Amino acid sequence: MKKHIYIYSPSSAVRDKAAFKRGVKRLQALGHEVEVDEAALAKYQRFAGDDATRLAAIDRAAASGADVALIARGGYGLTRILPAINYRAVAKAIDKGTRFVGLSDFTAFQMALLAKTGAVTWAGPAVGEDFGTPDTPDDIMEACFDDLITGQGEGSGWTLPKTSAFDKSFQVKDAVLWGGNLAVLASLVGTPYLPAIKGGILFVEDVAEHPYRVERFMTQLLHAGVLASQKAIIFGQFSNYKLVPGYDSGFNMAAVVARLQSQVKARILTGLPFGHVATKVLLPVGLKTTLAVEGRDAFVLWGHLHAGGDGLHGHHHHP
Amino acid sequence: MKKHIYIYSPSSAVRDKAAFKRGVKRLQALGHEVEVDEAALAKYQRFAGDDATRLAAIDRAAASGADVALIARGGYGLTRILPAINYRAVAKAIDKGTRFVGLSDFTAFQMALLAKTGAVTWAGPAVGEDFGTPDTPDDIMEACFDDLITGQGEGSGWTLPKTSAFDKSFQVKDAVLWGGNLAVLASLVGTPYLPAIKGGILFVEDVAEHPYRVERFMTQLLHAGVLASQKAIIFGQFSNYKLVPGYDSGFNMAAVVARLQSQVKARILTGLPFGHVATKVLLPVGLKTTLAVEGRDAFVLWGHLHAGGDGLHGHHHHP
Repeated sequence: MKKHIYIYSPSSAVRDKAAFKRGVKRLQALGHEVEVDEAALAKYQRFAGDDATRLAAIDRAAASGADVALIARGGYGLTRILPAINYRAVAKAIDKGTRFVGLSDFTAFQMALLAKTGAVTWAGPAVGEDFGTPDTPDDIMEACFDDLITGQGEGSGWTLPKTSAFDKSFQVKDAVLWGGNLAVLASLVGTPYLPAIKGGILFVEDVAEHPYRVERFMTQLLHAGVLASQKAIIFGQFSNYKLVPGYDSGFNMAAVVARLQSQVKARILTGLPFGHVATKVLLPVGLKTTLAVEGRDAFVLWGHLHAGGDGLHGHHHHP
Repeated sequence: MKKHIYIYSPSSAVRDKAAFKRGVKRLQALGHEVEVDEAALAKYQRFAGDDATRLAAIDRAAASGADVALIARGGYGLTRILPAINYRAVAKAIDKGTRFVGLSDFTAFQMALLAKTGAVTWAGPAVGEDFGTPDTPDDIMEACFDDLITGQGEGSGWTLPKTSAFDKSFQVKDAVLWGGNLAVLASLVGTPYLPAIKGGILFVEDVAEHPYRVERFMTQLLHAGVLASQKAIIFGQFSNYKLVPGYDSGFNMAAVVARLQSQVKARILTGLPFGHVATKVLLPVGLKTTLAVEGRDAFVLWGHLHAGGDGLHGHHHHP
């Protein structure tokens, strides 16, 4: 189904222009009408244009009438323009059917928009890294993206690691799903740009952050009272960090998760296929969802699907 | 003057034991009675013993009756034990004359103690990195440490970089000096462990943090309203980070400082000799101080000294 996809750059400057072009072509090859924002390849310092340029790009994405507004890439740049974003215009565009999709630095935009307007965005791919890979883009990512733009997405499932399987099945119903990049999330604590979600399902991911930094970020959320008011916490992919052999001595991500579980009532799940990795699902940020776990199968469900006594439905991805 | 120095490890495990031993010997050679905590070289995962061990070490430091309680090193470990620290015992020890000295991860302890009790601690050296260097320890650091333990320290001065000189002299009087490691400070925003200092002088330093991360941390403090209530902000040393040639394109520490100055009324000073560098002054955290600037000369003054019309007094260090 041909859709209108608007590509813009709210964060860092596109470094790998070849990947960006491949990403645009891939989306065209999938049958879509791709509109590239005039400043998508702008550069000022390390940003995709100065602050005014990036704010205008967000405005244009909101005014585009596109089915999907997709970020060129993440990086850094949204945090510092949060006070100046026209959240009402974005929320209105979302009301009219534009889905804002992105990740990483984009988390700042998603959280602030959710805090200011309650509007739902999507944690998902970026053009360059995900659609512009030298090889064929990840099929699960593309299947999820197709689900989104055709309106057929009703959930995502994954297999929990053996070590984090639960003894009993459980469900968390009608809980707001929210989260994203952990460092960005933590950087919003104490500011007006972190939404006050109660009884939610918080998901987190990050790249190139040692477990001690992951723990420090999570500890901030813990001490700020954010975690106590969540029903579940889902760890996505934490990639590209290095432990120090002979020094970390067992202080790894599993240890961070285990200690955190001793500090919070919320159930902690791991292994969600989302983050700075090729295989990523799309997740609605700010939407009420149901989390369902049966043995090692975990599902986040939304839309028309329900997890009933007769089994779970939804797209199940085994990364 | 012979003083009783108690050395303990509240954060990461000592990795460089040779440096630690050299540091102890150096302090002894300076004439001090050095008492090493029983768990100073403990190790659990990457920590200097498990949480209970480090909490007990803090208790012992508080009960030691020493003139100075000095950390073996920084690293990571205090954030996660903040809820369990016996702040009253530490404040009582400080009342009785023990000066708690340290930096880096120790910032978490200093901020929490200040928030809970108002007790004054000292931003200063650690045993291994500062007193245990293979070469002779930095003479300014040692002179400042000597000032502290003899009670003669009444201020620290430094030379502002040419680019950040002020047109007019000015003073900020009776303002609480506070701060420390920026990443640790930012990790406390929104929690009960960040003191609510109004009209203060905030100093920050960090190591191995790219300017974009420094800006993100400062932006958190900005958006949380912390910076708006400060009278001055002092950048210490930001060391050991790497810009990306051809990409950062002028987005450096100076650009971060310049943009921040456009966002806040507080005057921003740079070049304070404090941080993860050899040449560091000692600074009272939580004490009312006077900041005085004349041309390129900056002073933070406390104790009996005043900055009068007839000139400024205090130890002036040209790093």
